[in-house]
Amino acid sequence: MLESLKQEVLEANLDLVKRNLVILTWGNVSAIDRNTGLVVIKPSGVSYDDMKAEDMVVVDLEGNVVDGNLRPSSDTPTHLAIYRHFPEVGGVVHTHSTYATAWAQAGLPIPNIGTTHADTFHRDVPCTEEMSHEQIAEAYEAATGDIIAKAFEGMNPMHTPAVLVKHHGPFTWGKSAAEAVMNAQILEEVARMASITVALNPKVEMNPDLIDKHYERKHGANAYYGQKK
Amino acid sequence: MLESLKQEVLEANLDLVKRNLVILTWGNVSAIDRNTGLVVIKPSGVSYDDMKAEDMVVVDLEGNVVDGNLRPSSDTPTHLAIYRHFPEVGGVVHTHSTYATAWAQAGLPIPNIGTTHADTFHRDVPCTEEMSHEQIAEAYEAATGDIIAKAFEGMNPMHTPAVLVKHHGPFTWGKSAAEAVMNAQILEEVARMASITVALNPKVEMNPDLIDKHYERKHGANAYYGQKK
Amino acid sequence: MLESLKQEVLEANLDLVKRNLVILTWGNVSAIDRNTGLVVIKPSGVSYDDMKAEDMVVVDLEGNVVDGNLRPSSDTPTHLAIYRHFPEVGGVVHTHSTYATAWAQAGLPIPNIGTTHADTFHRDVPCTEEMSHEQIAEAYEAATGDIIAKAFEGMNPMHTPAVLVKHHGPFTWGKSAAEAVMNAQILEEVARMASITVALNPKVEMNPDLIDKHYERKHGANAYYGQKK
Amino acid sequence: MLESLKQEVLEANLDLVKRNLVILTWGNVSAIDRNTGLVVIKPSGVSYDDMKAEDMVVVDLEGNVVDGNLRPSSDTPTHLAIYRHFPEVGGVVHTHSTYATAWAQAGLPIPNIGTTHADTFHRDVPCTEEMSHEQIAEAYEAATGDIIAKAFEGMNPMHTPAVLVKHHGPFTWGKSAAEAVMNAQILEEVARMASITVALNPKVEMNPDLIDKHYERKHGANAYYGQKK
Repeated sequence: MLESLKQEVLEANLDLVKRNLVILTWGNVSAIDRNTGLVVIKPSGVSYDDMKAEDMVVVDLEGNVVDGNLRPSSDTPTHLAIYRHFPEVGGVVHTHSTYATAWAQAGLPIPNIGTTHADTFHRDVPCTEEMSHEQIAEAYEAATGDIIAKAFEGMNPMHTPAVLVKHHGPFTWGKSAAEAVMNAQILEEVARMASITVALNPKVEMNPDLIDKHYERKHGANAYYGQKK
Repeated sequence: MLESLKQEVLEANLDLVKRNLVILTWGNVSAIDRNTGLVVIKPSGVSYDDMKAEDMVVVDLEGNVVDGNLRPSSDTPTHLAIYRHFPEVGGVVHTHSTYATAWAQAGLPIPNIGTTHADTFHRDVPCTEEMSHEQIAEAYEAATGDIIAKAFEGMNPMHTPAVLVKHHGPFTWGKSAAEAVMNAQILEEVARMASITVALNPKVEMNPDLIDKHYERKHGANAYYGQKK
Repeated sequence: MLESLKQEVLEANLDLVKRNLVILTWGNVSAIDRNTGLVVIKPSGVSYDDMKAEDMVVVDLEGNVVDGNLRPSSDTPTHLAIYRHFPEVGGVVHTHSTYATAWAQAGLPIPNIGTTHADTFHRDVPCTEEMSHEQIAEAYEAATGDIIAKAFEGMNPMHTPAVLVKHHGPFTWGKSAAEAVMNAQILEEVARMASITVALNPKVEMNPDLIDKHYERKHGANAYYGQKK
Repeated sequence: MLESLKQEVLEANLDLVKRNLVILTWGNVSAIDRNTGLVVIKPSGVSYDDMKAEDMVVVDLEGNVVDGNLRPSSDTPTHLAIYRHFPEVGGVVHTHSTYATAWAQAGLPIPNIGTTHADTFHRDVPCTEEMSHEQIAEAYEAATGDIIAKAFEGMNPMHTPAVLVKHHGPFTWGKSAAEAVMNAQILEEVARMASITVALNPKVEMNPDLIDKHYERKHGANAYYGQKK
């Protein structure tokens, strides 16, 4: 079932290791088949060294396991909430990458202060609000997805495909699992640059014209970065 | 004598190098056989490149060498004190890993300000108090074990399996040598994240509900992280 | 056409990856053939893994593609402006290397506070001024080249072969593409050292005599660093 | 001439690359044959990739080339001054390693605030004073050696085998070239830890008893670290 998507999700998970975004069994990648509404996701707490395509778990958007012998990632309800709230998303990544997690722990959005950021993320990468006692106690992982959606009220999640969950860490997404992994790597680099920048100059801000220029030259209607498709 | 435990301890020591937790001859791992009360530990000042299982030294809980041709690690009395004080510990690791050592040098506990921390360490990782002139002069390494025990008064050492020895560096432990090494790696990553976080936001604190939630979902009675055992 | 220069430019681009100055498709290197006024440059948005010498694009100094099947780097007009303004330049490099980009984001020049800096860059590495709304809207990349030239008024660009474009990142140059890459690597290291230094001592300045001494012993009329040529 | 010492010096130089203490052609190692008073040193500005034992240059303590076809390192007079001032030194290393150089640029000694430091360096690693206009203008490299000697007035250079030359970078030494390289690696790690520590806690100081304990257990008359010799 969904063999080729399982292979894609496996490779995207292994890519987290190659790009130094995870250690041990941390992190997880999923992808959705929008025709059937089924999601393929990494199993929980399994070593990256031994992972096979057939270990990937298939769940529906309510979290019922449809295929697979292992438990899905404990973060599955968060992935599902992202797919439900953001209908253009095709793949989701969660890591505890060092610098993005440090910004999440600090409870601060990553400010858009350079073209490296603006080339991929049109706005500041938002940090979610504090969760309530009830949200933590009941259906915590699904509630995490809901506060992510709330952080994007009035923003286009496909133009800023990343969020920091307060005190936890980053989630990123994209049209595919591979794109979500690429965005996770860019987020980590952008988070690292921003932490060095604010140490050098705490008051820095970027001209909004320049932000738009860089985002548009890569992703706008008249984009001219890259090769013609 | 204890050949399979020697092999385990050798591999755990070599793992410190692979995980970038030690350079040169720094660091040491031990494990205890609780049936006999014998401890297997790395020899002192020997190169990791040349180390063999038969070089591991067997000592009793009073520090007498029972088997082996080499001197045990100079930190052996500290390992033994940890085994005596904390009866559930099966393996102990000492490193001078960069960020954990920097927190130890600063004389500060590593604050529990993110779920990466709370997933493994239920409380702040404590920093021991200053040692007295007498403690330093006489049986210094054993006294180091005693101030570690003192730092855990009222705390469960298996729920927060790490400590910073002030001005020195971290010790971690676990049910086995391998688990103690994993905890040393997580501690270093948590120490690094925390140092970046407090530079971004010196006043950060985490909601205690969230701390408990993350610790419990991985280690509590109703844990649901990982696969069923 | 210009086959050997294409090979040189390809290797210089691949060298950015080896020296950890770029990730993904970021960064670009070009070189000029001063006899014909033609510039060889990396294609836009192509993976470093698959890049071949024949993928390099040849453009004239006005930016017209003279040879090649792919679009040139979107930063081509900036490279061309550098070649037009600085007639001794033979190769140009653009990266988003972490520390140099952080200084650019902070809007600050990299101060000449050590001999590592003075050995290669005679003066502070300047940061360009803010661009106007009009410069960003029209011919942005060419305007970037013009503000670089403006930052070097009264300075010799061959004695300080690097600049930070504000909120963007570094450009470096040299007599050849290979020398420009070497300068990009030195700039990143110098930027990293400077960020650590100012955290330790924000008020540091270096004796101008020492700056001149180090620059002159390597690059002056009586240079004695290296072997006789 | 001195073939085995040339081999030793070659390997020590290559070791600087393996231990990530140098990039490009930066850094240099020498060793002295105390019987003849001849010093073997790396040639100036030669790539580490191509370097052979026969490229090493032999000079006397006044700097006259006695054997070799290449120019010796431009830092040779500094090495020679160290050998003249400190008669127990057998090998000298100079690097621009990142963190040690940052402390040198900051003009600050590296404080002895942890046992990692005290295990190898008994005192703070001193930073030299500012050089005068005359010292910079005439025989600069030899004057560098003289201010190093001045920084050790009243200190034992074999108990603290490292110095920071202000605005320049570290020199380390030892009984042999290999020991000097090891000390350069430890210095870089100690410098990195100290920079993180002072960011966390600017007022930190270590108990002098603990400093002596760690230095003595490794290097004192009753040292018990390592194996019996």
